[in-house]
Amino acid sequence: MNAHILDIRIYYEDTDAGGIVYHSNFLNFAERARCELLREVGYECSKIEQDLGFLFVVKHADIEYIKPARLDDALQVKTTLESMRNSSFQMRQIVQKDGQDLCNMLITLVCVETNEIKPVRFPDILREKLNHYAESKE
Amino acid sequence: MNAHILDIRIYYEDTDAGGIVYHSNFLNFAERARCELLREVGYECSKIEQDLGFLFVVKHADIEYIKPARLDDALQVKTTLESMRNSSFQMRQIVQKDGQDLCNMLITLVCVETNEIKPVRFPDILREKLNHYAESKE
Amino acid sequence: MNAHILDIRIYYEDTDAGGIVYHSNFLNFAERARCELLREVGYECSKIEQDLGFLFVVKHADIEYIKPARLDDALQVKTTLESMRNSSFQMRQIVQKDGQDLCNMLITLVCVETNEIKPVRFPDILREKLNHYAESKE
Amino acid sequence: MNAHILDIRIYYEDTDAGGIVYHSNFLNFAERARCELLREVGYECSKIEQDLGFLFVVKHADIEYIKPARLDDALQVKTTLESMRNSSFQMRQIVQKDGQDLCNMLITLVCVETNEIKPVRFPDILREKLNHYAESKE
Repeated sequence: MNAHILDIRIYYEDTDAGGIVYHSNFLNFAERARCELLREVGYECSKIEQDLGFLFVVKHADIEYIKPARLDDALQVKTTLESMRNSSFQMRQIVQKDGQDLCNMLITLVCVETNEIKPVRFPDILREKLNHYAESKE
Repeated sequence: MNAHILDIRIYYEDTDAGGIVYHSNFLNFAERARCELLREVGYECSKIEQDLGFLFVVKHADIEYIKPARLDDALQVKTTLESMRNSSFQMRQIVQKDGQDLCNMLITLVCVETNEIKPVRFPDILREKLNHYAESKE
Repeated sequence: MNAHILDIRIYYEDTDAGGIVYHSNFLNFAERARCELLREVGYECSKIEQDLGFLFVVKHADIEYIKPARLDDALQVKTTLESMRNSSFQMRQIVQKDGQDLCNMLITLVCVETNEIKPVRFPDILREKLNHYAESKE
Repeated sequence: MNAHILDIRIYYEDTDAGGIVYHSNFLNFAERARCELLREVGYECSKIEQDLGFLFVVKHADIEYIKPARLDDALQVKTTLESMRNSSFQMRQIVQKDGQDLCNMLITLVCVETNEIKPVRFPDILREKLNHYAESKE
């Protein structure tokens, strides 16, 4: 099991008048987790575009809301690599509370050249590093 | 064509350091549109829960990002009813700029009782009114 | 009375688990209003920086919270010019519901050169136009 | 020096098209810090209202923006008690990067009864605990 884990605390800003975390914020939590995963393997978000001339763009998101999260909850975002192609990859991102799934997301990211905004193959070193987060399937 | 249309203006708060609208905000725009659609048919969000004892919860979201939106853009959210079941319905919500699709969302909402948090059938009057937004398919 | 008026509708995204509008969002509403005011006098936000080489930065905010706003509220942001100096100006921005003040803000903006990030005098044409929103004081 | 320190990481969601942290988000960071400070002294936000029948409401905010924050920045929010009265207290909250001030806030909070929404004196035990964060002034 090679999931990247990010701890998230829920504050007032994350909640809505229904008393629960506003549904779009789970995408924010997922993006924070991907950002930390990339930092962990040496690719800081603000540096990628600047230094390498490409960036990762969210192309598709599939989100299943299972249970609500609430103020003061201590959550975990578990991120694994689902699949990888030439210029894109998919991340499975599950938000949990006490080991129970609250939200299950499948996020597709595309690598695009900064100037041309067209998909490009991303570096092999990064590919190897992302593979570290692939769920081992024996 | 019976789509509900909501105009959205993009402000700084909606954008990110990439110079484009932050991806999760499209879910916010979609929720504003559903809120206005419900208001249009006489079901103001804050009243539904209070007066009728149920509420609509986002259960699933499928989001395809096609083109980015930017600061000062004048967008339109086009909402149609995709399908309806006993206690749930699906809305197709497309964000457009000058008639061109930027984001295509399929949102599944479930009607739950306020206290019991279990799915319930929602009133026939509302069902009829939502049917008004069903895309006519000849 | 030369106030600029912007209508704001409150959605779930604006509220928090306390059932009211999250306090920092009033700054967002104020920024939307200033953006619309500038658009009204011909200075679209996204064009200012690009075409004129300067931008307006919030330097100071003084915010008094008087009464809470809630889901579905229809609010108005009333904006007037409080004072103007060489490279800065102050806007009084009051958020009202049914004519009653909910939030009273005094926002100080500084005009800075895009590249040098140092204060500069902003154009006389814009100064004249902003003066239109000065509260007439007989 | 008895400041409460909270570490904050800047993500895309916090930034805007100007490439910097959107100004209202500093109020969010300040609220996160007050929430953690209260948790530290045993008063979890979600429990205060429920168990004690009162809540703290932001009554006034004075915000000075000194330098911008950017994507990936690692910031610190330093919170000290500035003053305390019967039903209110003031927090000085300074956001720093590498020891340099980016934003200096003075936030006034009022303790109100949940039902009556009128100011009440808050418990002596909490008063003592907040006093721990008072800047020692010799």
